[in-house]
This record gives sequence, structure tokens and C-alpha cells, in this order.
Amino acid sequence: MTTSGGYTPLTVETVPAWLDARPHLRARVPGSPLHVREVGDGNLNLVFIVRDDPDRPGIVLKQSLPWVRVFGKGWPLTVERARHEADAYEAYRPFAGATNPDYHGFDPVWYVLAMEDLADLRIWRTALNEGEIHPGAAGEIGTFIARIAMRTSDFGLEPEVRKRQAALATNPELCRITEDLVLTDPYIEHERNRAVPGVEPLIAGLRADDRVRLAVATLKHRFLTGAEAHIHGDLHTGSVMVGGGRAVAIDPEFAFYGPVGFDLGNLWANAGFAAARGARLGRPEAFRAHVAAILPESWDAFTGEVRRLWPERADRFYPDAFLAAWLRRTWDDALGYMATELVRRIAGFAHVSDIDSLPDAERASAAAACLRSARRLLVDRAGFPDPAAAWSVVAEEIARG
Amino acid sequence: MTTSGGYTPLTVETVPAWLDARPHLRARVPGSPLHVREVGDGNLNLVFIVRDDPDRPGIVLKQSLPWVRVFGKGWPLTVERARHEADAYEAYRPFAGATNPDYHGFDPVWYVLAMEDLADLRIWRTALNEGEIHPGAAGEIGTFIARIAMRTSDFGLEPEVRKRQAALATNPELCRITEDLVLTDPYIEHERNRAVPGVEPLIAGLRADDRVRLAVATLKHRFLTGAEAHIHGDLHTGSVMVGGGRAVAIDPEFAFYGPVGFDLGNLWANAGFAAARGARLGRPEAFRAHVAAILPESWDAFTGEVRRLWPERADRFYPDAFLAAWLRRTWDDALGYMATELVRRIAGFAHVSDIDSLPDAERASAAAACLRSARRLLVDRAGFPDPAAAWSVVAEEIARG
Repeated sequence: MTTSGGYTPLTVETVPAWLDARPHLRARVPGSPLHVREVGDGNLNLVFIVRDDPDRPGIVLKQSLPWVRVFGKGWPLTVERARHEADAYEAYRPFAGATNPDYHGFDPVWYVLAMEDLADLRIWRTALNEGEIHPGAAGEIGTFIARIAMRTSDFGLEPEVRKRQAALATNPELCRITEDLVLTDPYIEHERNRAVPGVEPLIAGLRADDRVRLAVATLKHRFLTGAEAHIHGDLHTGSVMVGGGRAVAIDPEFAFYGPVGFDLGNLWANAGFAAARGARLGRPEAFRAHVAAILPESWDAFTGEVRRLWPERADRFYPDAFLAAWLRRTWDDALGYMATELVRRIAGFAHVSDIDSLPDAERASAAAACLRSARRLLVDRAGFPDPAAAWSVVAEEIARG
Repeated sequence: MTTSGGYTPLTVETVPAWLDARPHLRARVPGSPLHVREVGDGNLNLVFIVRDDPDRPGIVLKQSLPWVRVFGKGWPLTVERARHEADAYEAYRPFAGATNPDYHGFDPVWYVLAMEDLADLRIWRTALNEGEIHPGAAGEIGTFIARIAMRTSDFGLEPEVRKRQAALATNPELCRITEDLVLTDPYIEHERNRAVPGVEPLIAGLRADDRVRLAVATLKHRFLTGAEAHIHGDLHTGSVMVGGGRAVAIDPEFAFYGPVGFDLGNLWANAGFAAARGARLGRPEAFRAHVAAILPESWDAFTGEVRRLWPERADRFYPDAFLAAWLRRTWDDALGYMATELVRRIAGFAHVSDIDSLPDAERASAAAACLRSARRLLVDRAGFPDPAAAWSVVAEEIARG
């Protein structure tokens, strides 16, 4: 447990005095008394909404705990993750616009981030689970990933600056979680795994397939060594808030310099979960079309923004032909990481409510469709060269039941 | 110019008092008076041989200058490079055996490394230039590269340790030299370029070939982002000392976490220079066979040692099929970086004595053979799947005259 002197977990009772001692933050919620609610529903942190008027947005304080919240004190985890989240917001601020939450600073002793109270927005996963349509969200996130790719990499920074940023963004503990929970455990017997009931034979089949193991090992090595850009690192639909025509990427505590395709694939897999859920619940066609458009819309927005920024690249030595090759590589990576996310949420430790909250029979059949899609993507990525082909894998497996 | 208080360049006059103030080093050359010679013939540093008996090895002191020595004070360069060299020796010490020089420590104020006086050894390039045969040297270096690949990477270290090592090894200034002088300038018009006379049309042809530009840009991106292992970063024949059956890799000041194939390719290109020189000077067949064996012997030693260490890998998740794919990728990288080294020593700023010291006519024809070989390797690497095929490119181009 690596905390500096002075660190103590905040409570709803101690937040007001903590803010009183920080006038620059207190000025954002100047009235009295302060209304404080703890709403952290993630796995890792305390999250307080602080308002002086309960009906108007105030500020959010997010504090790291020195352990994995969902697991308890038996799984210690560095509070440095709050610093990584803060550094990512800072890195994204120059180009992310409204896709970044308004960010008010970081306290490096208390490991507290102060940021925008996104009261009018909802977690995208929750919205999708309830059948809501938020047009434009997928495009916003695709554009955001493109800007990360172009502005935090050697395409956007002098190489000396990029290397120092990458060193500062070194995030061993959080990356280890991904390396273990996403890119290893689901493919082996491990006590942390918790399979969705009813798909055990499919999981056994994945584990027995040498092509799957080789593909996942290659993706793991690329995750570990492909230091391209300051990626978000955990960009699923639970890390996006939507509403009022806005999409906001939150929780970049897994941020580090990694392969750009990782964020895209993460998003697409979670579109897959939403699609499987929507089909099993018999959602209206308009909703199902909306979910089916997440992959193509985000890829189109991504490639459009990358191409728009390409002429401004920091290093004109890269020819246009390199961009085409890099996009092909990123597409291939994204499909691979889409597959590993599809698998780990069914076969691994951390699940998604999209699937887990379905009735038993629908849950097993939705989970099976995700696993079958993932296996096809892992062993035959080259066979799916464009968004229509890639999404058809998911659509076909969902339709198979 | 980033130097701490107390830094001053040493001279042959000031070295004895500097050593007297450091008893742990003075104890290695305890007699009096001390005999000090400055022998730095590289581009970047002061190098002093210090002995108490002129006929017996003493110690070597190597001090960074805050500029590029060969260029003068108009090209400032961080003295941190001495720290990077020291860190590399420390990183290699556990596995490099006699391939690492005996290393006595680093003074972080004076930026002075203290190391073994390799008096009985010669720079390999010098030896090759004079037609000397040093059996086993290529294999030693291939084994050394393999151990770096397996022991400093995620194959040999826990991922948290590897990431912290990579962050510490971040070496922006020295990498920038490679990125500019090796992986950019030779392919564009740049005032730093100094072409070997007589090959200007071949250089123009390289620059006009879109396939060459794409290949080099891809290699550049990989150099910038492929953080595999703590590579040497400048492992040409001028960075290897040979003699008495020993081969020692020196001058790892360019060390950083990069692609393993870079070191192999660097070595092989310099075998190419030696071969071109040997042919033009009509060296005996035994010598030419010795040079022709550098690529296959070092690759065989590399792959043999990698395979020997593979069962001990830190992460058993990687299947054997991954090793095969990783070796293919490393082979492809190595041929690419072999090509960029072949080009930059002919068309770029920093040349090699192998070629430059040839008589005019032989020099131009040797340089042309190097450029033609490089172009074939750049545009058709997939056509050369093994050492015999790859070396045949060089041999054929040299034979063409």
C-alpha cells in the first residue's frame, strides 16, 4: 500500500471540511450547507458528488483507495491510479473538447481528483441496458480516440516530448490488471475466473484452441510493447457518459502508452454486449440498428479524424502510404482486442451488467454468442477487412441463438 | 547543456587528482606516478586510459561531453548518455559474462564511467579493416543480443519491473540521433548528409522510390514504438572489441527499450561494409569466408540462445508458436535495420572507415554495392527468409562490382 503521509479515505462527513481547506475548489460550490453523496459504483474508487444546491450540478471528487474496492483490502492496488487519471485528463484537455470532463485538478497527497459533476449525463452502459438511443455518441468516441492517436503519439509530438510523456504514463499496476484479467486468465484455469453459467463448453473450446492462444499471446505482447499513444486503456461503455448530445470519456486510470486499437476494440466489444442483450430482450429495431452502428460509426469517425489530422503530423517523413498501413494494423488490433474483451467479460473475473442481468436462459445464449464471435475474430481476423464484415460476425452469432 | 554543479571536462593533467579523491577506483591503479592517455576516437566522449604500469592494463575512465565531440560545441548533447551507458552495463551484467566489460561504477556529477582497460583487445572494425580473423566473435555477439532479448524483456522480467526499467532507460536525445541520422536524413535532402563520392545517382534512386520510403518509415515507427528489450542501440563493429578469444560490447550509450532486431541488423550491415572492403582489397578467401559468416553465425547463435532460454520465460502464457512468430518478426526487423545502416553510412552524416578509407575507385564501387543491397532488402525483405538468402544479396551486389 503506497500512500504518502496525510492520506486518509474521505467520507461524506469529512468532505465539507476537506473542501473548506481548498478555497479554489470550494469556490465552485460556494453555498452552505454542502450536500455530499458517495456514488462510486465502480470497482476501484470513492466518488463523491458535492453540491450546495441539490438540484444543480456541483463538483465531483474522486479518491483512489489503496485496494480494489470490489474485492476488498485483500487485493491492494496503488493509489497512483488517480495520478494517472489526472495525467490523462491533462493530456487530453488540449484536443478532447467536451469529450473530456471539465477537470479542476488533483491533490497528490489525498489522491483526490476534482472534476465536473456530470449530473445530466448517464453511464452509456446503463442507457443501452435500458434501450436508450444516444445518436452521435459512437462518433464522438471514435473522434476522441483518433485525436489521442494523432496528438499524443509521434504523429503529434516531438519524439523527445512523446518519450517523456510515455515514461510518466508508465502504469505498471493497472496494466498488470489488464494483462492478467483480460489477456491471460480467461484462457487458462484460474481461481479469479467466474464464467457466466451455461457456456463452460465454449470456454473449454477456446482454451483448447492453439490458434486462439497464439492470437491472444500476440495481442498481449503488443499490449505490453506497442507504445504508440496515451490510450485510455479502459474505454468500455461504462467509462462513457452520454446525454444532451454529449459523450464524455471518464475513468482513464488505466491510461498508458499502448496500441491505439485497444480502445477501439474495447468499445466495439461492449457494443456487442449491448447488441446481444437488445436481441434477447426483443428491443425495437431502431435501438438494434443504433447499437449495430456503434462499430461502423466509431471507425468512420476515427479514420475521418485521423485523415483530417494527418497533414498536420509532427513528422512529415511518414508518407501517406504509411497511414494506410497503420490504419490496417490498427483495424487488425482493434478486432483482436474486441475479441479479448468479449471473452473476458463472459469467462473472466469482471463481468458486464448487459449480460449478467439478463434472465438465465437469455443470459447463457447471449454469452454464447459473444464467445463464438470472439473466437471467429481471434482465429480469422484477416477475413473481416471492414466494419460491415466485422459486425456481421457478431450479428450472425447473435442470430444463431 | 544539462550538467549539474561540479561538472568539468577532465584532462590528462586532472585525472590523477580526480582518482586520488576516489580511493575505491585509485585502488585499481595503486602505484605512482599514474600514466594517463586520452584515446577517445569516437564522436561523443573523452576516454582516458589510466595505468600505474604502462605495460599492464589499468582502468578506463569515460566522460560525456555536453556536445557532440566530432561536431563541436555547436551541437549540444546531454551528458545523461553516460548514465544510460552505465545503466546498460548494469542491466547486462547478470547475464552478459565476458561480453560486458568489467564495470567499476559511475559518477553522476562528473558523468564519468570507470571500467575495464581492454588493452589486449582491438576494435573489431579496425581488426576487420586490417584483414584479421577473430573466430567466434559473431557468435558471442549473437548470444549477447539473445540474452538481452530474453532477460530484459517481458520474457525475462515481471511486467512491472520491465516497465520501470523501460521508463528509466528512456533516452530521448540519443534516440533522436538515430531517428534523424539513420532513419530520416539519408532519404531526404539534408545539410547533414555527406555522401560517399560517386554514388549520388543511387542515392537519388533510393529517395525517389516510394517503396523505400514506406519501408523506412515503418522501421522508424517501429524504432520509436516497439519497446521490446533494453537493446544496445549502436552495436556496429566499432562498438565491439575483440581479442584473445573474447568479444566485448562497449559504448551502449544509445541503449533504450527498442526492437531486438535493431542490434542484429546493425551488426550485419557492418559485416556488409567489411565484406565490400575485403572484396575490393582482394583479401584472402579465408578472411572473406569469415566475414560472410558473421550474419549466419550471429543469427544461429541468437536463435539458439533464445530457444535455450525460452523454457525459462517469465510468462508461460506465451506458447511455442509465439516464439516462432516473434523470431520471424525479429528476422524481418533485422534485415530492415541492416538496410538502413547500410544506407546511412554511405549517404548520411556518420561514415565507416571500412569504406571511406578505400582508394577512390574501390570506395565508390563498394559504396554502390552497399546501397544496392540495402534497396533490395528494403523493398523485398520477405524474399529473403534465411541467412543464406539474405547474405546472398550482399554477396551478389559486391560481385556485380
